[in-house]
Amino acid sequence: MNAADLVMRTAAAAGVDLCLANPGTTEMPLVLALDRLPAIRPVLGLHETVCTGAADGYARLTGRPALALLHLGPGLANGLANLHNARRARSPVVVLVGDHATWHLDADAPLTMDIRGAARTASRWCARLVRAGEAGRLVAEAIAAARSGAGGVATLVLPHDLQLEPVGDASLATAAPEPPAAPDPGALAAAAELLRGTAAGALFLGGAALHGRGLRLAGRIARATGATLLCETGFARLETGAGLPVVRRLPYFPEQAQALLDGFAHVVGIGARRPVSFFGWPGKPSRYLEDRAGVVWVAGPEEDALAALEVLAAELGARDDDPGALLDPPAMPTGALDGGKLASLLVRLLPEAAIVVPTAVTNAYPFSAIAHRARPHTQLALTGGAIGEGPALAIGAALAAPGRKVINLEADGSGAYALQAFWTQAREGLDIVTIVCANRAYRILGLELERSGEAPGGPATRALTALEPPAIDWVAVARGLGVPGTRAETAEALARILDGALREPGPFLIEAVL
Amino acid sequence: MNAADLVMRTAAAAGVDLCLANPGTTEMPLVLALDRLPAIRPVLGLHETVCTGAADGYARLTGRPALALLHLGPGLANGLANLHNARRARSPVVVLVGDHATWHLDADAPLTMDIRGAARTASRWCARLVRAGEAGRLVAEAIAAARSGAGGVATLVLPHDLQLEPVGDASLATAAPEPPAAPDPGALAAAAELLRGTAAGALFLGGAALHGRGLRLAGRIARATGATLLCETGFARLETGAGLPVVRRLPYFPEQAQALLDGFAHVVGIGARRPVSFFGWPGKPSRYLEDRAGVVWVAGPEEDALAALEVLAAELGARDDDPGALLDPPAMPTGALDGGKLASLLVRLLPEAAIVVPTAVTNAYPFSAIAHRARPHTQLALTGGAIGEGPALAIGAALAAPGRKVINLEADGSGAYALQAFWTQAREGLDIVTIVCANRAYRILGLELERSGEAPGGPATRALTALEPPAIDWVAVARGLGVPGTRAETAEALARILDGALREPGPFLIEAVL
Repeated sequence: MNAADLVMRTAAAAGVDLCLANPGTTEMPLVLALDRLPAIRPVLGLHETVCTGAADGYARLTGRPALALLHLGPGLANGLANLHNARRARSPVVVLVGDHATWHLDADAPLTMDIRGAARTASRWCARLVRAGEAGRLVAEAIAAARSGAGGVATLVLPHDLQLEPVGDASLATAAPEPPAAPDPGALAAAAELLRGTAAGALFLGGAALHGRGLRLAGRIARATGATLLCETGFARLETGAGLPVVRRLPYFPEQAQALLDGFAHVVGIGARRPVSFFGWPGKPSRYLEDRAGVVWVAGPEEDALAALEVLAAELGARDDDPGALLDPPAMPTGALDGGKLASLLVRLLPEAAIVVPTAVTNAYPFSAIAHRARPHTQLALTGGAIGEGPALAIGAALAAPGRKVINLEADGSGAYALQAFWTQAREGLDIVTIVCANRAYRILGLELERSGEAPGGPATRALTALEPPAIDWVAVARGLGVPGTRAETAEALARILDGALREPGPFLIEAVL
Repeated sequence: MNAADLVMRTAAAAGVDLCLANPGTTEMPLVLALDRLPAIRPVLGLHETVCTGAADGYARLTGRPALALLHLGPGLANGLANLHNARRARSPVVVLVGDHATWHLDADAPLTMDIRGAARTASRWCARLVRAGEAGRLVAEAIAAARSGAGGVATLVLPHDLQLEPVGDASLATAAPEPPAAPDPGALAAAAELLRGTAAGALFLGGAALHGRGLRLAGRIARATGATLLCETGFARLETGAGLPVVRRLPYFPEQAQALLDGFAHVVGIGARRPVSFFGWPGKPSRYLEDRAGVVWVAGPEEDALAALEVLAAELGARDDDPGALLDPPAMPTGALDGGKLASLLVRLLPEAAIVVPTAVTNAYPFSAIAHRARPHTQLALTGGAIGEGPALAIGAALAAPGRKVINLEADGSGAYALQAFWTQAREGLDIVTIVCANRAYRILGLELERSGEAPGGPATRALTALEPPAIDWVAVARGLGVPGTRAETAEALARILDGALREPGPFLIEAVL
């Protein structure tokens, strides 16, 4: 057994069963260790952004880390934007990065780079193996760090020569993750006091409060107190649909977000950060809940939201489940497509227990507004704002939840960041339907220009915000990467195509021309 | 005029005429400034790796920096691998990264990231604007830093609110780049002494010694002294072909590289780093020229290689030009394709003054071995080992040298990293012919396994090194992104298709099935 074997066996013993990889020469001992260890499934990404985004999606659904195995500094750099998203999602992800042999490092060979310098920008834990015998302890610590608190990214750098060193029959190290911090009793009492009042209040939810028992408890509290449930704009994982408590997503634009929050006499935060504006728009607020009364945070993202909900529900006598939303599909839309019609169709057709990845930038919001009227399903949103994660998140979701249909509601601008993901969807035969909202523009930038009074801008603005010419032929691109697909230009066509795609196994792409 | 205008006008005054961009909300003031400044051409990349790779290619041909305009930390992260390549190429590149408004930064909004932490891994100069009025001085300094010595990456972070601040009619700042350090007279004397000897010696060349006057001087010295010309494996820019001095490229694998270098009684380095092994292979050398006599370095990459060549040529009385290689096209190959036949065809058909980007990982070496027999042309190689730069380098080359045909000899594994580049090639109508060497594998990893006695490996190795199933349909992918193309499975077909593609303007892709 060499240190690479020790790394992989220790990970498998800790429950790791998936390795999303794009290895190079310096990672081959780890790949060969996987040859000898069928407990960890190897999945190739043609670009590291696929590996890290998929690891994020997998973690969001399972709560467990997958490995992202990357090649030196440049491989890590390629995966960094989605590690940033994973960091914001508080997803447990363990990144293994190979490095040059220790004795070769100071030769400053072409691929040499400050790996930890890059890794630290997205990692809560970062270490480098310096003695082969410590490989087991370090990977156990990396896994524990990734799973501690609400979860995060842990990066372990493994020099090539140390991976190859024999380590004998070392016993496998384990390390316990640190539980999330307990909620503050004073804040809990203050929150209960507010929620007992008669004024219209809101629970602002994130993390564990948006799915499973957490969401159920939040629904009970809402039912008992009349509070409205709100959630972060960039939530990590939300369960919604018929029979589940209705949770309103905080709007993206600050004036809408501020107006929504201002409508509540009090806001109790559980599992979420205090909401802030996505950008610092001139004259708009930075923090929405600053300088106002009636705001109590019982659990931030690093504290135990589930415990806070249990205490609050008991304190408020909230024992009855929220009956939740009604199955209320919108009318069948007709004619030329737009974001609203697309949303209606998706809500009508969504299968029970589907996983939706609504990472379209402008066209996901109409869906968010009515998704509670669909069959119960799970949503994974863009948490860190680094666009292009959707197709990779969908891979992670499909690997985590075989048997559940995954629908990626993607934009053309952001989808173009992650074309490589379609190949992995095809290779692994994943049940992913991608709907590309093809409006042929970075539409959000056009909206920003309208808001700032600068629209439509001049020739540089057009050159840098329009996605045509040429219009991307998404069906051709997907087919070239192994994913069948077709184009839809009307609601009727989309309904027919989507219905068919949802019934067939395997990946499919629909170019929805908006 | 606001600070964004000041940034762009200062850059234009310093000779910058190209901005490779993928902007977001925080960069829109800079985009609007480009609307008002036609001197700088805006070119959109669908992924930041296209922008930074193209900036590298542009810099290698012109010696001048283009701007790479990127969106916050995640945008920079996406472009980082090719900035690493640019750093290794010593390409002058100026990266402008927007950031949140200064008053919004500590709200830690979703996209907030340690931008400079990431930037420093590839930048020789990095700064952040803190007062709008200093925008001109800082961008002038960034340009000077990028152009100082042999060239490098300079990154300037520009908060959104400061971009928008009025700055009056500030006069445009200028800053002078620092010239490269003068070569050491003692080393020059020692080198001349060695080269005067009768033993077989070599000049090991990089940087300015591989093109233009530098290469001509190197050829004169070679002619006068009988020295062989060698160059770095990962050279930034090489001129070669009929009438130009023959330069041998150092092989990738260490035993071949070491054997080549050991064949020379003395080695004089000019413009290159002392050669090191690409990876630290067990039992192989790290530095090829360590612990041996007869090695003199008259100019490293940060020193003035041209001055060193002038002194040496004068000292050695090397006044006669090397007549250079003969135009000696290989015989027309036939039958099923392989890397050697592909190289022969390319050498036969290459137009004069073409620019070749030989970034295929295993299949570029047969071409390198015989490229001197082709018509005179320029080559841009992968300098930093971060694969996937080829299609973007080709964009930069085509933008820098309109009228010259660009041929990207690309691998399928590395080409898949940069699919987005084809869209920019189509949008800008660039004269780029991409030949994808489709061997359906990360073939280099198979070679590594054979070398280490581990081939063929088990199921994980196959899963993580084979690129089929599914086989990428490169013609479909390219067409979907606006680039016409076709597939070639024999030498005869490739000859016909390549000949046609080289005669037509605009981008074209050939999937060469190996």
